[in-house]
Amino acid sequence: MSRTRIHNFSISLDGFGTGEGLSLDAPFGHAGHRMHQWMFATRFGAGIMGGEGGASGVDDAFAQQHEPGIGAEIMGAGKFGPPCWQDDPDWKGWWGPNPPFHTPTFVLTHRPPSQPLEMEGGTTFHFLDTTPEKALELAKEAAGGQDVRIGGGPTMVRDFIAAGLVDHIHFVQVPILLGRGVRVWDGLEGAEAGYDIETVSSPSGVTHLTFTRS
Amino acid sequence: MSRTRIHNFSISLDGFGTGEGLSLDAPFGHAGHRMHQWMFATRFGAGIMGGEGGASGVDDAFAQQHEPGIGAEIMGAGKFGPPCWQDDPDWKGWWGPNPPFHTPTFVLTHRPPSQPLEMEGGTTFHFLDTTPEKALELAKEAAGGQDVRIGGGPTMVRDFIAAGLVDHIHFVQVPILLGRGVRVWDGLEGAEAGYDIETVSSPSGVTHLTFTRS
Ligand SMILES: NC(=O)c1ccc[n+]([C@@H]2O[C@H](COP(=O)([O-])OP(=O)(O)OC[C@H]3O[C@@H](n4cnc5c(N)ncnc54)[C@H](OP(=O)(O)O)[C@@H]3O)[C@@H](O)[C@H]2O)c1
Ligand SMILES: NC(=O)c1ccc[n+]([C@@H]2O[C@H](COP(=O)([O-])OP(=O)(O)OC[C@H]3O[C@@H](n4cnc5c(N)ncnc54)[C@H](OP(=O)(O)O)[C@@H]3O)[C@@H](O)[C@H]2O)c1
Repeated sequence: MSRTRIHNFSISLDGFGTGEGLSLDAPFGHAGHRMHQWMFATRFGAGIMGGEGGASGVDDAFAQQHEPGIGAEIMGAGKFGPPCWQDDPDWKGWWGPNPPFHTPTFVLTHRPPSQPLEMEGGTTFHFLDTTPEKALELAKEAAGGQDVRIGGGPTMVRDFIAAGLVDHIHFVQVPILLGRGVRVWDGLEGAEAGYDIETVSSPSGVTHLTFTRS
Repeated sequence: MSRTRIHNFSISLDGFGTGEGLSLDAPFGHAGHRMHQWMFATRFGAGIMGGEGGASGVDDAFAQQHEPGIGAEIMGAGKFGPPCWQDDPDWKGWWGPNPPFHTPTFVLTHRPPSQPLEMEGGTTFHFLDTTPEKALELAKEAAGGQDVRIGGGPTMVRDFIAAGLVDHIHFVQVPILLGRGVRVWDGLEGAEAGYDIETVSSPSGVTHLTFTRS
């Protein structure tokens, strides 16, 4: 059975999935790089940056689960680019010519560019203005029996969880208090029902939370 | 040096310290008993209820720290009683004739009863309408060199942390999504600075967070 999964999604202690003031210079707003330092310290994170080394303890064990078995990703417009990227015909995402997805990747936006964007390395960005349910249906078809990753940011993560569409969630709670930004937990009262929840604190200071459909 | 400490303060995964709809029949509103089940399963919790037994692992080790070295408590009006307890001259708190404080206990309220309430077992409730700073000063005097506990609820916990008055915080994150109630983290952007933070996940499913002044 194809599953819908969230991986390596960082949240602050006070429940924000990104900061305030998103821009070209500040993809996470005032949160800066603090949300993902735990990941860049791992072997997985070093590999993403084209490097080697990095820690291979519990943070890495979780981080490595990001790729295997994934056949497509769905992300929100806020992850794909800074506010109003839709007005820039040359915008191709943050990730350069060879983005780290290597699968069909569906970008939800109310102002979808008319053409998909074929990148190097197997990533093609498809732009969709549709419901979470319909987007997941399309992504599952494109994934050819493999799993679909829900890539974030917080607004669309919340929507997919609220719609009951997510089978496995991996959140990483980072011990910082952002105070402002986009909240992950809003509108999710009682959403823990139907999941087995585990929490594992890491020596790095972050806490891994997993929700697995029971 | 006398320290100011918070212990056994439960928060939901989405950051609420109590639910919505507080009343005489629902001291935690729609949260019910879910916030403190972890504690009542410990030896400490069983002892509070006048019983014996209970688990003595990591949850108990943390819970037991609630009492030793404490010479006074400060609590908010919302912990002392249901909304408008000030209008009931017979209200003496939730805890019966022998409350579990056994020290001078300062209740912050904008409508303080004129007389302190002397209870059995060493607890005297003093009612104060003053700033967190001044309340702490009075509590420290009353504590005679021992530590002062900040007893909650979330509104006053937030105020004391924001004012930089708390030396040690023990929060217990419970894996439930309350969705509504009183938020603990509001207005605390950057408040983690100056603390060493540890997180320890327990086999019971809760996660202990400690903030210790560095
Ligand atoms: N914490 C993490 O691990 C993590 C992971 C990924 C990203 N992020 C960060 O999260 C931030 C972005 O998150 P965000 O919450 O602002 O935005 P987001 O969740 O990425 O995207 C939300 C936006 O996508 C579009 N959208 C969502 N659902 C749609 C639907 N069903 N139909 C049509 N359009 C839809 C809408 O944009 P339009 O109306 O503009 O089209 C909506 O405002 C960035 O800072 C990013 O770096 C964090
Ligand atoms: N999560 C936990 O572990 C935990 C621990 C303890 C309690 N609780 C729960 O928390 C809830 C109560 O919390 P809450 O946030 O609603 O209220 P609270 O923090 O107990 O009390 C806040 C109230 O105290 C009074 N107050 C606070 N500071 C004051 C000051 N400087 N001067 C004068 N008055 C002041 C004000 O009431 P007035 O204006 O009415 O006087 C204010 O609304 C209850 O449900 C309780 O059971 C939870």
